[in-house]
Amino acid sequence: MDDLTLHEDPRSGNCYKIRLTAALLGKPLACKQYDIMQGETRTPEFLRDVNANGRIPVLQIGDRFLPESNAACWYLAEGSPLIPGEAFDRADMLRWMFFEQYNHEPNIATLRFWLQFVGEANLSPFQESQIMAKRAGGEDALAVMDEHLAGRDWFVGDSVTLADIALYAYTHVCEAGGFRLQDYPAICRWLIRVSGLPGYVRMS
Amino acid sequence: MDDLTLHEDPRSGNCYKIRLTAALLGKPLACKQYDIMQGETRTPEFLRDVNANGRIPVLQIGDRFLPESNAACWYLAEGSPLIPGEAFDRADMLRWMFFEQYNHEPNIATLRFWLQFVGEANLSPFQESQIMAKRAGGEDALAVMDEHLAGRDWFVGDSVTLADIALYAYTHVCEAGGFRLQDYPAICRWLIRVSGLPGYVRMS
Repeated sequence: MDDLTLHEDPRSGNCYKIRLTAALLGKPLACKQYDIMQGETRTPEFLRDVNANGRIPVLQIGDRFLPESNAACWYLAEGSPLIPGEAFDRADMLRWMFFEQYNHEPNIATLRFWLQFVGEANLSPFQESQIMAKRAGGEDALAVMDEHLAGRDWFVGDSVTLADIALYAYTHVCEAGGFRLQDYPAICRWLIRVSGLPGYVRMS
Repeated sequence: MDDLTLHEDPRSGNCYKIRLTAALLGKPLACKQYDIMQGETRTPEFLRDVNANGRIPVLQIGDRFLPESNAACWYLAEGSPLIPGEAFDRADMLRWMFFEQYNHEPNIATLRFWLQFVGEANLSPFQESQIMAKRAGGEDALAVMDEHLAGRDWFVGDSVTLADIALYAYTHVCEAGGFRLQDYPAICRWLIRVSGLPGYVRMS
């Protein structure tokens, strides 16, 4: 098997998804760290050699580079129980992973980044103008998750899949973005379930 | 095989992706239409029976419902040449599909919707304030695509995959959102390539 290297910023939940997937699978993963606050993923070298889109995470597999966190999780987990064996469930898992990137991450991860790392006093007027919409969008996403989890243990089927890992990453730290986990009791129970998985690792 | 019904608004590029995938595969697909401008995907019945997230498209497979356009395309295409056989290529296809939902659709599809269907005069001040950022984000996404396509015919491997279908849907109508296709010559050549595929159908 080719060597695996994660190009990451340890503060990023998108990077953590990949580390958590590798840990649950027992796959060794080297890490190369970048500071996104210092523009280290926008250098000419990074854009040329790692990701023309200027973003981390990127999973390096031998001499090939795979951007997009959920695609990297998919690559690591193929052939494992983290991807369901039944066709509808497999597509339904991808459904929650696309939901995560469209409805969840742009609201919940962005508010966490702005409030915890940039700092409210340093936000631009344009960023400030978006806070209310991102708050509402994030609360809508958490409500959809909480309703789905009310009668079940995992997002798809009867065991943990990549859908749980993808959604766990920014949900379990959403209070840093000003969201209130106590409003979502089914999510709280599911967070405990994920953190009790054999091989679980914490976010840095 | 279960009956397939697409819950859709024909103006939506996300719905078109699924119709195009089914057409290229020769799979019959019934359609049930909703007018998103009239709130028809936010009714209590829709939220209860079709998608708690209040969005189309949803692919109905027998009595099961699968939201998220790219997950529906995946379901239709499993086992076909539209999904690469090699593991890295398969993950790389998903990489471009996540890129589409994160970097492309929220900018390019949203500006098309606002300018072509809502109308610039009817935009809220909050929507107006986002136009410049969405224009820049959409141009960045198109530039990444154009650079990638400069030396190749398809996004992944040597033939059409779901990555091409997902990115084609809103790219080929991006001028309705004020983007200039003539600035992206490799994209223009690729658009012609997609529209020449056997079984290709036009957007409604």
